[in-house]
Amino acid sequence: MDINSDLEGMALALEWAAKGLYTTAPNPHIGCVIVRDGTVIGAGVTQKAGSDHAEIQALKDAAARGHDVRGATAYVTLEPCNHHGRTPPCSDALVRAGLGRVVAAMEDPNPLVAGQGMAKLAANGIDTSVGLLAGQAYELNIGFFSRMTRGLPWVRMKTAASLDGMTALHNGVSQWITGPEARADGHHWRARACAILTGIGTVKADDPQLNVRAVETPRQPRRIVVDSKLDIDLSAKILDGGGTWIVAAQGNAEKEAALRDAGHDILLLPNAHGKVDLPELMRELGRRQINELHVEAGTKLNGSLIREGCVDELLLYLAPSLIGDAQGMFNLPALTDLSHKKHLKFHEVKQIGEDLRILARFTY
Amino acid sequence: MDINSDLEGMALALEWAAKGLYTTAPNPHIGCVIVRDGTVIGAGVTQKAGSDHAEIQALKDAAARGHDVRGATAYVTLEPCNHHGRTPPCSDALVRAGLGRVVAAMEDPNPLVAGQGMAKLAANGIDTSVGLLAGQAYELNIGFFSRMTRGLPWVRMKTAASLDGMTALHNGVSQWITGPEARADGHHWRARACAILTGIGTVKADDPQLNVRAVETPRQPRRIVVDSKLDIDLSAKILDGGGTWIVAAQGNAEKEAALRDAGHDILLLPNAHGKVDLPELMRELGRRQINELHVEAGTKLNGSLIREGCVDELLLYLAPSLIGDAQGMFNLPALTDLSHKKHLKFHEVKQIGEDLRILARFTY
Repeated sequence: MDINSDLEGMALALEWAAKGLYTTAPNPHIGCVIVRDGTVIGAGVTQKAGSDHAEIQALKDAAARGHDVRGATAYVTLEPCNHHGRTPPCSDALVRAGLGRVVAAMEDPNPLVAGQGMAKLAANGIDTSVGLLAGQAYELNIGFFSRMTRGLPWVRMKTAASLDGMTALHNGVSQWITGPEARADGHHWRARACAILTGIGTVKADDPQLNVRAVETPRQPRRIVVDSKLDIDLSAKILDGGGTWIVAAQGNAEKEAALRDAGHDILLLPNAHGKVDLPELMRELGRRQINELHVEAGTKLNGSLIREGCVDELLLYLAPSLIGDAQGMFNLPALTDLSHKKHLKFHEVKQIGEDLRILARFTY
Repeated sequence: MDINSDLEGMALALEWAAKGLYTTAPNPHIGCVIVRDGTVIGAGVTQKAGSDHAEIQALKDAAARGHDVRGATAYVTLEPCNHHGRTPPCSDALVRAGLGRVVAAMEDPNPLVAGQGMAKLAANGIDTSVGLLAGQAYELNIGFFSRMTRGLPWVRMKTAASLDGMTALHNGVSQWITGPEARADGHHWRARACAILTGIGTVKADDPQLNVRAVETPRQPRRIVVDSKLDIDLSAKILDGGGTWIVAAQGNAEKEAALRDAGHDILLLPNAHGKVDLPELMRELGRRQINELHVEAGTKLNGSLIREGCVDELLLYLAPSLIGDAQGMFNLPALTDLSHKKHLKFHEVKQIGEDLRILARFTY
């Protein structure tokens, strides 16, 4: 593949970054492509946490293919790190390897390190530039950026509704409102999330597995259930395989012990009303390195999360059908004044099969 | 402007056709462009009923500019007519003028004349072809095609809702759910319709004018009110200027006389339940040469029209906001089985200002 411009180089680095979409969390998904005289001589993507970053992978790739990277240009979708985390600084590796130029899509969002990786490169005589295709690089790592800058996961709430905004009949039937393509697409969004959140109501009504099945992934997201009274049945499918986090407002020594024995974790986060403190839950998930949180819950928990300002984005599948009087999307109280409505901004709209996929972001 | 291909010629003819979008009804909006050696030597659009069709306008334009059209190619967005209506046949005029080639986007939808215009041209030695950009030509005249082939107007129901599918608060407040661009866009759709239909509930609640204000138009669409019991107040704004059609199920000699005196027309169309027979109303509107019918009504009449299969298309403006518990879009009964839902197909989705405009068509 020939690279004839910085734009092409960065676009290819973004393709490499996307290869890590289902695997690198809690690390960001970063791609690196090394180019000399229009030829790609090395490429890499961040490996899972504790293993190589994209830059190191790209340098190793170039070496394995017998290429000398001295004087070459590296395109990387995030500023190379400049600190010792679980791996040594990538900036040092790039300097040692003798790169001539480093083009980064974005600065590191961590305010403690922002700009220092690029500064180290520049101080060592490497030509640097930052900002190319920054928007795409940000979208790939929106959860990592959220956690670095706010200490919170990026919270994406998925729902599917008919064109008149209904999610289920009053008798509870909700299967197949959207088509097979939309349902498979939903699994792609599950797969890229660090965790999937639901409520005990949905667990009791539908007994969902809430894992990724329709797309291949080497890693299943963490499953989290908001379950104020620790009401969950130990045979619930969401507990299959262990590792589920149960978020309660009231303890129950016996139930807690049984859940812990089965490999789950209990988070006791009560608010003043004896319910789960949802904003505190989000902060705790940030501390637990959850970058993207995927919410698939019922109208009640959906409504509570929106009311308490915990949701960043709606992922809404709209089916081309009318259902009539039925269950709406979010349990939100009636307003007396339209100025109190919740504002969002359309981010992306795309047809998926017969349905429409709408991404809309809250503008709190 | 240079025309280097049939595609460019037809695209320009479609631009000319669109100039008639607010004026030519009940005639279709047709454009004609005459090209020789890559140069446009004449162009025209159908005038209002009884005046020149597009082909005649284009021939006159060429003559006025001193061009000889012999041997030239005419691009026309509908097959030239071959019958004496209010004007003589265009096919004869094209033959007389000595055109060398006629490219039409579509055949005439009227089954009595379909293909005969092109056949007449071919029989007179003119090279003909049909079908280029037929989809766009059809969309421009979807109402005319509907009336010609089904005897019914094309019924487009406009509504505006929040992202959670709500159109108004329970206290009736519904102003400004969508932004100014969407509201202006709505007037474009009103302007292209032959008539605007609403219900007495909306007239009483909002007292709308239901005319075109946000875009310039030389012609106001006919206004129609479904008013089963002839309940309308003579001071209602929708009666301003006369010419409104009131559709009732029960007569009332005094009220009818007062309305007729003020220049309105009464249609008595009862069904077996003492309500207005909506399917019969649609047939009557077809007979009255209504091509496109624009519906802006409340949730009740909207629901009835959908239930009775009278709606072809939803024009739905979705605002990026959540309103919560409020008034839905259509008063449709609860289903017990999702297989009874009404099916549509997304036709076009576009962002208008901050809002989303969705055109979706019923697939009864």
